[in-house]
Amino acid sequence: MAKITTREKDYSQWYIDIVLNAKLADYAPVRGCMVIRPNGYAIWEKMHQALDGMFKETGHVNAYFPLFIPESFMKKEAEHVEGFSPECAVVTHGGGKELEEKLYVRPTSETIIWSMYKKWIQSYRDLPLLYNQWANVVRWEMRTRLFLRTTEFLWQEGHTAHETYDEAEVEALKMIRVYQKFAEEYMAVPVIVGKKSDSEKFAGALHTYCIEAMMQDNKALQAGTSHHLGQNFAKAFEVTYQDRTGQQQFVYATSWGVSTRLIGALIMAHSDDQGLVVPPKLAPTHVVIIPIFKSDEEKKAVCDAAYQIKSEISSQGFRVNVDDRDQFKPGWKFNEYELLGVPLRIEIGPRDLAAGVCTLARRDSGEKTTLPLTEVSSRISGLLDDIQSGLFLRAKARMESHIFNADTYAELEDIVKNEKGFSRSHWCGSPECEAKIKDATKATIRCIPLDEPDESGECVVCKKPSVKRVLFSKAY
Amino acid sequence: MAKITTREKDYSQWYIDIVLNAKLADYAPVRGCMVIRPNGYAIWEKMHQALDGMFKETGHVNAYFPLFIPESFMKKEAEHVEGFSPECAVVTHGGGKELEEKLYVRPTSETIIWSMYKKWIQSYRDLPLLYNQWANVVRWEMRTRLFLRTTEFLWQEGHTAHETYDEAEVEALKMIRVYQKFAEEYMAVPVIVGKKSDSEKFAGALHTYCIEAMMQDNKALQAGTSHHLGQNFAKAFEVTYQDRTGQQQFVYATSWGVSTRLIGALIMAHSDDQGLVVPPKLAPTHVVIIPIFKSDEEKKAVCDAAYQIKSEISSQGFRVNVDDRDQFKPGWKFNEYELLGVPLRIEIGPRDLAAGVCTLARRDSGEKTTLPLTEVSSRISGLLDDIQSGLFLRAKARMESHIFNADTYAELEDIVKNEKGFSRSHWCGSPECEAKIKDATKATIRCIPLDEPDESGECVVCKKPSVKRVLFSKAY
Repeated sequence: MAKITTREKDYSQWYIDIVLNAKLADYAPVRGCMVIRPNGYAIWEKMHQALDGMFKETGHVNAYFPLFIPESFMKKEAEHVEGFSPECAVVTHGGGKELEEKLYVRPTSETIIWSMYKKWIQSYRDLPLLYNQWANVVRWEMRTRLFLRTTEFLWQEGHTAHETYDEAEVEALKMIRVYQKFAEEYMAVPVIVGKKSDSEKFAGALHTYCIEAMMQDNKALQAGTSHHLGQNFAKAFEVTYQDRTGQQQFVYATSWGVSTRLIGALIMAHSDDQGLVVPPKLAPTHVVIIPIFKSDEEKKAVCDAAYQIKSEISSQGFRVNVDDRDQFKPGWKFNEYELLGVPLRIEIGPRDLAAGVCTLARRDSGEKTTLPLTEVSSRISGLLDDIQSGLFLRAKARMESHIFNADTYAELEDIVKNEKGFSRSHWCGSPECEAKIKDATKATIRCIPLDEPDESGECVVCKKPSVKRVLFSKAY
Repeated sequence: MAKITTREKDYSQWYIDIVLNAKLADYAPVRGCMVIRPNGYAIWEKMHQALDGMFKETGHVNAYFPLFIPESFMKKEAEHVEGFSPECAVVTHGGGKELEEKLYVRPTSETIIWSMYKKWIQSYRDLPLLYNQWANVVRWEMRTRLFLRTTEFLWQEGHTAHETYDEAEVEALKMIRVYQKFAEEYMAVPVIVGKKSDSEKFAGALHTYCIEAMMQDNKALQAGTSHHLGQNFAKAFEVTYQDRTGQQQFVYATSWGVSTRLIGALIMAHSDDQGLVVPPKLAPTHVVIIPIFKSDEEKKAVCDAAYQIKSEISSQGFRVNVDDRDQFKPGWKFNEYELLGVPLRIEIGPRDLAAGVCTLARRDSGEKTTLPLTEVSSRISGLLDDIQSGLFLRAKARMESHIFNADTYAELEDIVKNEKGFSRSHWCGSPECEAKIKDATKATIRCIPLDEPDESGECVVCKKPSVKRVLFSKAY
């Protein structure tokens, strides 16, 4: 049996135990890298599919740009190179020879993409370009953690080009709302949509929008970002277009991304001491059916019923697995599928069969009900919807009850240092006050929320006037 | 207007003109790398989707392994390192420091994957492992060509682990047949399934199966390979399992892959001097509708009809685009969609509308027919099927008429040197005779066909006995 440390005992170890025991990922023999095992990759495939559909619905197309970025490109945008260069992997040799110019393994693709946009954009008629790519990227991280922070990870990165500041702003906001919708409706993870403070924004952006989620240990996890890049990359790569009046103008840009880190967020948001909990919309398997038998004769009868139910449920478009293996006992199987997070389990034994019933167990609540066999298949869709919305509501209630209005520095410190939740506090807007809090508590401004009203107050550090509360927390 | 060199004038330039003008790919600013533009990537997405479905139907699951391979891993399998090491890109620095051990950017993933299989495989109960990954790989090529041979390319690589030689053999053969099915049924490209000669097999394999296609210039293109790796990688990485009798045994392996090179094969197999021709099963857009109008009033009427037809055709699951842009003339649009290879074009003008008809043009044959508007949508499915099978049959007839039984060296030389087609000739099996032909003609043994009968004969070089004809050709 898999041994999972309880959350109460050691939250970090609990997370690692789930990742390893549910075979979602494993440590690779390369520093800071992970192997995404089939159970983890299947969740990423569902995420990919849902997000890709949302990107296409909003008019985006996919493309693919090179993994390698010439060193000179990285250096063209000053803030960008300062932010990313220290964490790059560098290729110095190729085909047995030392290269004339070093190649950086992409940590993000703005520079290589804007070098191509220069070739493709001449006129306003070429705009907007609404491109996305699914790719691997590499950032040389000092402290890594499976899914949450790894040297190599998988992600998507949108890179769009626009005529005006306003259009780019609309795009950056549209995409952070797409991420919010995905997080809430698919991952069942409630998020706070906001703007990053200048010290936390993307290296090379005018400003950065983000979605922030709360994990069960009350720490924050940045789950997606969308950047308004202004004309910074257009200027660095000299990308101009002839506007509607015949003038040459620099192009406006956005970029936005989410990564395999979302799998970490998913695990941390919903799972429990028995293992993984996966919301139905992202579950590789929706229902597992476990026939219970002692003899071959019993096996035949219960398996016939199991496969009959499987076929009824599958025909509704749900993914169903019958586990009729002899070498494992039913109790072992129950634990196994709880560990793997399959949303619904159906048990059928000979006595059930004789009575024309089966047992249906929910992974989210553990609740078990006995149902007539003839009714099972008609109940699945509703139950999965219930689980999906229940997980979201539970997480939302949890988050809301762990966000505290802290009006003094002492209150803020108590909340964030002791990891009680997010502190919703007034801040004057100065990087100095932000840095003081970070130095003393390790908490950062997670975001300046977009959906919360303005409110007059005093900065918890310097007492200068503030127009809005922002969220402070330690973060992954 | 896009200018495309004719095939007759310069086949290589024709290919490049199609790739660039149809915006399938572009040259990247990194040596030998390409950018896959949205029109090209959309075809890759269709390929990915179809292949992935076929892999899953045959019991495979997806995973993801790291991009970086420690140098010491590459060196563990002697033939493998000899084959791949000279064409690797090497990371020597990460996070601002020189690395203790160099990292190779994966040229293929056998070594990193088998280092993980060592952790995961203990018993026959853990077998088989039927894993696949979709990934980018890097091979430092001297001479590159968009899609066909690029420094970085996208591919899938299957890596399976088995108890016995026979099981691995069944798998290797199963997957080359999956590739054949995909090439023939989706790409409409007929292929010859065969075994590579020892000098052409994968570095580290016992033997390699392949599918070989013929391009319109009569040269061969290797479109997919499947390798029986025996116990080579298991021995290199000490991967043993306890067998059913309690003995420790080395695990047997296969690997198999196809890449974005298939897009090159698709272009070269079907396209013509007007542009790309895409078989309907892989076409990002099945039907384009072009309303023809001179006044706003006309525009409204024909566009209403166009969108009505679009909605009827879309509801059958086909992808339809109405191009009602004002700034381009109908003639320009006709050429544009011929260049892009959209299988069917529908034209509707005011006079058509008055007569209740429209014109339907096939991309493959150029054939135009006038059809009642009420009948159009019911004809689409059948026409697309016709185009799909027609492309395949045309390519098959072409290939078959360009494979020649050459019984003397002089005949073989005439066929392959002058690029008349494939030479089907007797070969004694010796690497020396193979090398003589290659040195003199640049033609290689493309494969020893699996589906052709044995036949006694004499090697075209040394006159020693031969039991089977093999195929010789120059290749991409």
